[in-house]
Amino acid sequence: MSRIISAHYGKANIPVMKIERGLQRHEVFQAVVSVDTEGEGIVDAYTGGDNSAIVATDTMKNFVYALLLDYPITSIEALARHLGQAMLRRYTTMSRVTVAVEQVAWEPISFGRAGPEAVDRISFQRRGGATDEARAVVDRRSTAIESRLRNLTLLKTTDSAFSGYVIDPFTTLPETEDRVLATSLSGRWQVRDGDLDYCALRERVVEILLEVFVHLKSRSVQHLAHEMASTVLRECPEVLEIELNLPNLHCNLLDLSPFGLVNRDTVYVPTEAPHGDLYVTLAR
Amino acid sequence: MSRIISAHYGKANIPVMKIERGLQRHEVFQAVVSVDTEGEGIVDAYTGGDNSAIVATDTMKNFVYALLLDYPITSIEALARHLGQAMLRRYTTMSRVTVAVEQVAWEPISFGRAGPEAVDRISFQRRGGATDEARAVVDRRSTAIESRLRNLTLLKTTDSAFSGYVIDPFTTLPETEDRVLATSLSGRWQVRDGDLDYCALRERVVEILLEVFVHLKSRSVQHLAHEMASTVLRECPEVLEIELNLPNLHCNLLDLSPFGLVNRDTVYVPTEAPHGDLYVTLAR
Amino acid sequence: MSRIISAHYGKANIPVMKIERGLQRHEVFQAVVSVDTEGEGIVDAYTGGDNSAIVATDTMKNFVYALLLDYPITSIEALARHLGQAMLRRYTTMSRVTVAVEQVAWEPISFGRAGPEAVDRISFQRRGGATDEARAVVDRRSTAIESRLRNLTLLKTTDSAFSGYVIDPFTTLPETEDRVLATSLSGRWQVRDGDLDYCALRERVVEILLEVFVHLKSRSVQHLAHEMASTVLRECPEVLEIELNLPNLHCNLLDLSPFGLVNRDTVYVPTEAPHGDLYVTLAR
Amino acid sequence: MSRIISAHYGKANIPVMKIERGLQRHEVFQAVVSVDTEGEGIVDAYTGGDNSAIVATDTMKNFVYALLLDYPITSIEALARHLGQAMLRRYTTMSRVTVAVEQVAWEPISFGRAGPEAVDRISFQRRGGATDEARAVVDRRSTAIESRLRNLTLLKTTDSAFSGYVIDPFTTLPETEDRVLATSLSGRWQVRDGDLDYCALRERVVEILLEVFVHLKSRSVQHLAHEMASTVLRECPEVLEIELNLPNLHCNLLDLSPFGLVNRDTVYVPTEAPHGDLYVTLAR
Repeated sequence: MSRIISAHYGKANIPVMKIERGLQRHEVFQAVVSVDTEGEGIVDAYTGGDNSAIVATDTMKNFVYALLLDYPITSIEALARHLGQAMLRRYTTMSRVTVAVEQVAWEPISFGRAGPEAVDRISFQRRGGATDEARAVVDRRSTAIESRLRNLTLLKTTDSAFSGYVIDPFTTLPETEDRVLATSLSGRWQVRDGDLDYCALRERVVEILLEVFVHLKSRSVQHLAHEMASTVLRECPEVLEIELNLPNLHCNLLDLSPFGLVNRDTVYVPTEAPHGDLYVTLAR
Repeated sequence: MSRIISAHYGKANIPVMKIERGLQRHEVFQAVVSVDTEGEGIVDAYTGGDNSAIVATDTMKNFVYALLLDYPITSIEALARHLGQAMLRRYTTMSRVTVAVEQVAWEPISFGRAGPEAVDRISFQRRGGATDEARAVVDRRSTAIESRLRNLTLLKTTDSAFSGYVIDPFTTLPETEDRVLATSLSGRWQVRDGDLDYCALRERVVEILLEVFVHLKSRSVQHLAHEMASTVLRECPEVLEIELNLPNLHCNLLDLSPFGLVNRDTVYVPTEAPHGDLYVTLAR
Repeated sequence: MSRIISAHYGKANIPVMKIERGLQRHEVFQAVVSVDTEGEGIVDAYTGGDNSAIVATDTMKNFVYALLLDYPITSIEALARHLGQAMLRRYTTMSRVTVAVEQVAWEPISFGRAGPEAVDRISFQRRGGATDEARAVVDRRSTAIESRLRNLTLLKTTDSAFSGYVIDPFTTLPETEDRVLATSLSGRWQVRDGDLDYCALRERVVEILLEVFVHLKSRSVQHLAHEMASTVLRECPEVLEIELNLPNLHCNLLDLSPFGLVNRDTVYVPTEAPHGDLYVTLAR
Repeated sequence: MSRIISAHYGKANIPVMKIERGLQRHEVFQAVVSVDTEGEGIVDAYTGGDNSAIVATDTMKNFVYALLLDYPITSIEALARHLGQAMLRRYTTMSRVTVAVEQVAWEPISFGRAGPEAVDRISFQRRGGATDEARAVVDRRSTAIESRLRNLTLLKTTDSAFSGYVIDPFTTLPETEDRVLATSLSGRWQVRDGDLDYCALRERVVEILLEVFVHLKSRSVQHLAHEMASTVLRECPEVLEIELNLPNLHCNLLDLSPFGLVNRDTVYVPTEAPHGDLYVTLAR
């Protein structure tokens, strides 16, 4: 009467930390790892309560910690792939493993002065700003790697327009050739599986997003989003596909005329809800 | 060099409230509405900055509020469909509209006593528990309706087992025939588009989920999830497909023997992270 | 050069769960416990790094779990007092212990039908609505007990006015004799230390808050808050002092006249920020 | 029968943004402002519903926006004081005004390269890390200014000990001379009211907190907290009093021996709850 379209399970939100104690400097890696698995035998646990192919999620957690001990971390992308491939090799009942690694980033504490003590070697400060995440989907034939970025929050005080749109009886928004534009960009991009420097690639993608944001005189957030995504594809051959999400965090110029004041592009009300929201996905 | 796979935009998180002032009783409806739109002309705004087919998200917001005034709300499902169909009718450049309605539920304040004043007619209390949401995806040919439920948090003190799973060198979890099971169930189910009582259908689905939770002696959370989903499909012909997500909110029996105490199924440590996580999707 | 005004420490956010397995019915108690301690010897750890009077917060956590095993829980207030007094008795370097118990409430799953299976004996659903918390501050001479309530969210569709306030050049809010009033009430009240039924007292206080909300034709949120607090003091001799906080969750009537529509007290925009905020503290 | 101990009200969470459009560079200031007021006439609104001394919180909001237009912002401390003093001057029924300003910090987008385009003049990125807040309490005779810092998250991989504490039957934590220490420091410090550079003072305080964190070989978090606070008082004569809160974000070394692995200070489990929590307040 009913058939299974999809059935998968795993361990979510495994907190991990690894410290490399070099002579010159210690390195701290912290992340939240999630593992998700699929497989034919697993289905029997769903339909009949037969657990013989089920790997307990507690076991998955132990496996992740054990693997972390000896693996030299070079990027969250490579780590996600390594965990996924190792799990698939070990557990034959699994046909597909998805691993997500969300970094909790630390940077060495530095002081604004010269000399050998300007950057400390054992003390760290949590890095603010956008969150980095990587995902690897590994099955018996292939590996797909995706880099993600969450909440890169940006604002531009000029060089953004929004005009020429549909005017109908429900339209009260005035057209403008010059507005304040704020967004909290999130994105994901598929990258080639290979011997890549995923950290350098991520840095390059973020730099491109910032450069387009800085330089484009945008006609709309849609225009900006498409230019960001297409520039990444043009400049980074390792990126196969990219999706961007740009909420429009409206900053509304305030009317102070009821109080006898002229507010010339000075005082704004930044709002959170409701907000415009926009997605674009580009491929080659 | 790059091609658009997907491009859509809309207004997210529009807060709405409607009060019906009946003679016997007032009714309060509150929700957060999100609208998302697609269309061929819209693509030109992305690729070239031509906004002539763009309906400003501010206009969408105005349209939602205006529609709300005269529409008699019977369910969040019917409201989502109504908003989507009305928007598609009005704006010819749109080819698809998705509307999400997440209810902020109120219930009349009631007192634990008899008499006409036991339930107040103008005063309300926010209803706790799970969150109800509905989505309608409307295009020029069809309408798809989905009901959603988020965070129905449940616990069972016995009648749950987990044993017979893979034992390998990374397994430290002991098998058990009797454990505490806690979960915060979320789900979504596609329902037939028609002249249905979507409220009654939602109530029936939730009742089935609770009944299976109460009565099944489960062999695993997977077993429980499948039994819940398949029972909904069996009992509710209006449901076309259903996806359930059951995180396993582990409640670990605490070892108090270091303190000379015997903890016989009494004191537990409820944990939030990491947690087992599980998805199943069934169709007819 | 500097002197210590205050120094205290403890363990925060200890998750606890206790299950009582009665023949007729199981009972689930879940809470988050926090412990905070002060004492003269403790100061030496601060000033000179001498830990000889320091009880590790990990030890405090163990102590809480161990105490929970045999203690019959009657209310979160009595539990907070019990934990505080036991800790003070055991650890002589402590001069004051503060214990906070925030309940995570469960209620038996019930079905809307008659018969013995209408309420299940081993299955529970998380109770929504306001959060209950209790605090006990215990020193060598006395015990102070405080009950707290967080986010009792209420709405009234009529019988609330706000007029006669200061009108000056910065005033744009129109006076009204009939508005929608919404608030998310939080409060704390000191209760007598003794052999009280703290659960029944809490229920009575909440019932009074609801009754005043339902029946008062308020002139302002200030008026409502004062009437609530003074009625609790009048009706409950065990309450020594009470503080209430009522944010004003504005629900603004929407102007739909730009779209040719007349919105007669029907469609509102509920807003979260900014909001009016109001505190009152009453004692006998 | 009851008397008012305290009664105050205001507007919370007013979102403000001000843009200064200089020739060389634009400046963006964003903050969330909260205003709270007290006064004798205000009490009549509470006790009898007489609003004649009540300034609507909507009026307060308008007043804040209007003041912002012409006031040159030099620090959040000076802004909080300015808003409080202006409100007290204008509204004679108020006897005390408290203003809180929590900054939402932006920094110019910069690229890791030389040249005039390395830092953009109109584009900004949200600054991560700790949150800055200032409070001014203004009455008819005096002004008190407090600077606050929230969630300065720090980690140290060595040079932290915790030993010599009370060992009793509930103690299972092993003593250590070398542990990983992580904390998310929050603090508040009273500063002199005067013609100070509050921005420079805040930077100096944060630098001292970081320097003590980096250089102290701590015996406990208590020891660290006291050394931080007392160094601030010693180095900054403008600081009158300081309170610090340092949660102990435990990073537990993981036992991998069940899997035949030796984990030598490499893999840790960072935990969020429960956590040690610690407060110290120092004055001159």
